[in-house]
Amino acid sequence: MEYLDSYAGRTVLITGGLGFIGSNLARRLVELGAHVTVIDSLIPDYGGNLFNVDGYADRLRINIADVRDPYSMRALVKGQEILFNLAGQVSHLDSMHDPFTDLEINTRSQLSILEACRHENPSIKVVYAGTRQQYGKPRYLPLDEEHIQAPTDVNGVNKLAGEWYHIVYHNAYGLRTTSLRLTNTYGPRQLVKHNRQGFIGWFIRLAIEGKTIQLYGDGGQLRDLTYVDDVVDAFLRVGVNDSVNGAVFNLGGAAPISLLDLARQIVEIAGQGDVELIPWPEARKKIDIGDVYSSYARIQAALGWQPTTPLADGLHQMLTYYARFLDNYVTP
Amino acid sequence: MEYLDSYAGRTVLITGGLGFIGSNLARRLVELGAHVTVIDSLIPDYGGNLFNVDGYADRLRINIADVRDPYSMRALVKGQEILFNLAGQVSHLDSMHDPFTDLEINTRSQLSILEACRHENPSIKVVYAGTRQQYGKPRYLPLDEEHIQAPTDVNGVNKLAGEWYHIVYHNAYGLRTTSLRLTNTYGPRQLVKHNRQGFIGWFIRLAIEGKTIQLYGDGGQLRDLTYVDDVVDAFLRVGVNDSVNGAVFNLGGAAPISLLDLARQIVEIAGQGDVELIPWPEARKKIDIGDVYSSYARIQAALGWQPTTPLADGLHQMLTYYARFLDNYVTP
Repeated sequence: MEYLDSYAGRTVLITGGLGFIGSNLARRLVELGAHVTVIDSLIPDYGGNLFNVDGYADRLRINIADVRDPYSMRALVKGQEILFNLAGQVSHLDSMHDPFTDLEINTRSQLSILEACRHENPSIKVVYAGTRQQYGKPRYLPLDEEHIQAPTDVNGVNKLAGEWYHIVYHNAYGLRTTSLRLTNTYGPRQLVKHNRQGFIGWFIRLAIEGKTIQLYGDGGQLRDLTYVDDVVDAFLRVGVNDSVNGAVFNLGGAAPISLLDLARQIVEIAGQGDVELIPWPEARKKIDIGDVYSSYARIQAALGWQPTTPLADGLHQMLTYYARFLDNYVTP
Repeated sequence: MEYLDSYAGRTVLITGGLGFIGSNLARRLVELGAHVTVIDSLIPDYGGNLFNVDGYADRLRINIADVRDPYSMRALVKGQEILFNLAGQVSHLDSMHDPFTDLEINTRSQLSILEACRHENPSIKVVYAGTRQQYGKPRYLPLDEEHIQAPTDVNGVNKLAGEWYHIVYHNAYGLRTTSLRLTNTYGPRQLVKHNRQGFIGWFIRLAIEGKTIQLYGDGGQLRDLTYVDDVVDAFLRVGVNDSVNGAVFNLGGAAPISLLDLARQIVEIAGQGDVELIPWPEARKKIDIGDVYSSYARIQAALGWQPTTPLADGLHQMLTYYARFLDNYVTP
């Protein structure tokens, strides 16, 4: 694939580069011959983990820094050809408990990263990680990019603003930016330490520990999942393509699946664990959005991307990884 | 009208209460018998002006404070029944030159106001002033509330986030919030000191000073205008109505008019001034959004609101006001 050949010798910066998607992207880029710098603040509970680049640490540059620090960011964007901008606070629940921290990381920092690029390195290409959460409760399914953005929590509002700064900086200043709106990404190196960053990592951990996966209501809510290698592939396609500057794309998953079916499949592949249905807690019900899955038609038309990893294969990879390395991801 | 009778004896807080819309609202509320507190920081160039409450200053409470100060806001929301939340940085151009100040005022402050309400006064009713700018360049016309939000400048992004915090705090915490998305509001007490807060105030000032109104291109871009008394009426309807909590409404104007026709009408009513067409400056063209006007069908259906002031009458009122009081609005 031509786009994969384009990364040899390129300078690439990844914010959140020790986190789940960032580290998978960093490892792939190292394999493709890129000069990779990862930025991460390793805030406990956020997902950054030095083990995520185990075996690669001598082939990339690790720079511990916080994207909230505008001076570090100004220095770090200099001389970089591509910025994969993945740093973020991703817990919906944490955003309600501490909305200001979420604002600082997901919104204000994005503005200062873009200002750093505009002033220090205006020719840099920036690929931002948005989220399907920006849409809120679906008016119709699957969600496409023209769906109204009506987020249901502070995290969704802040991510929405963070994304739109990128688009505004393209339209007003010609900065080469693109946003990919992620759905439920899953795979190795995902946070499994707690259950506040989405359900998949937590389901996997419970299964591996032989515990019970609890689902609210009838577990019938539909979700789409995208395996991390597919997500990485989308970032790689966009990072060297100027035809999609200023655009936003959903990285929708393949066929939607109910949480109940997903949990059962995880338990089956793991060969242990259990599934139980429990009533909705009031606080969760209030910010739940029912069925939600998104269309990848736009990015398929523009760049030929589509999810290719079958769910069973992806879950198997992920379960195998954590069966072996769980100790590196949970506090003993 | 029943809703107008509801304000007698009510405690009402208005952020941005010495500004254009806030002061017109404050004066009306005083006339309706409400106990009004206005908050304003009187930041030069923002629109707050003590003269805006001339003749009313002894019948309302003026509290000079900045909405960026969370401690003041916590104290000020206590004991208030209704908050008209109008404080904001409203210049699109300023938001591009100083995006962080715009973020602090239009986004972070909104979060701290809502946190103040949630913790100190959870039964307060909050009416927020959003903007049709949140929609960006129209995909279709007139803009309705289901139109995608794709702002074209930092101010639009930040106002969008500020609005959605209000909706999230309704959905998650039951806070009684509503947002009114303003289009081009015009009338007495509008800022006419500089041209960075929209075109109408500036056109009026140029006409009164016998100068030339310059329009970009052919001046054919369509806009809708709403007279400030109509906007005040909408805020009053919403402030005592719980059926619209969690909702957003456009305050669209009556028939759209081209900038050229508007400028000519202003010059004609003023009996002086002139109109000239000039080429687009590049920086302005980049953030221009072409024709834009919005539908008020949703608020008309919900609350019976519609713009009632004919444009010629509104312009006449405004021109008469500034012919008399211009010295109170411009630096000599």
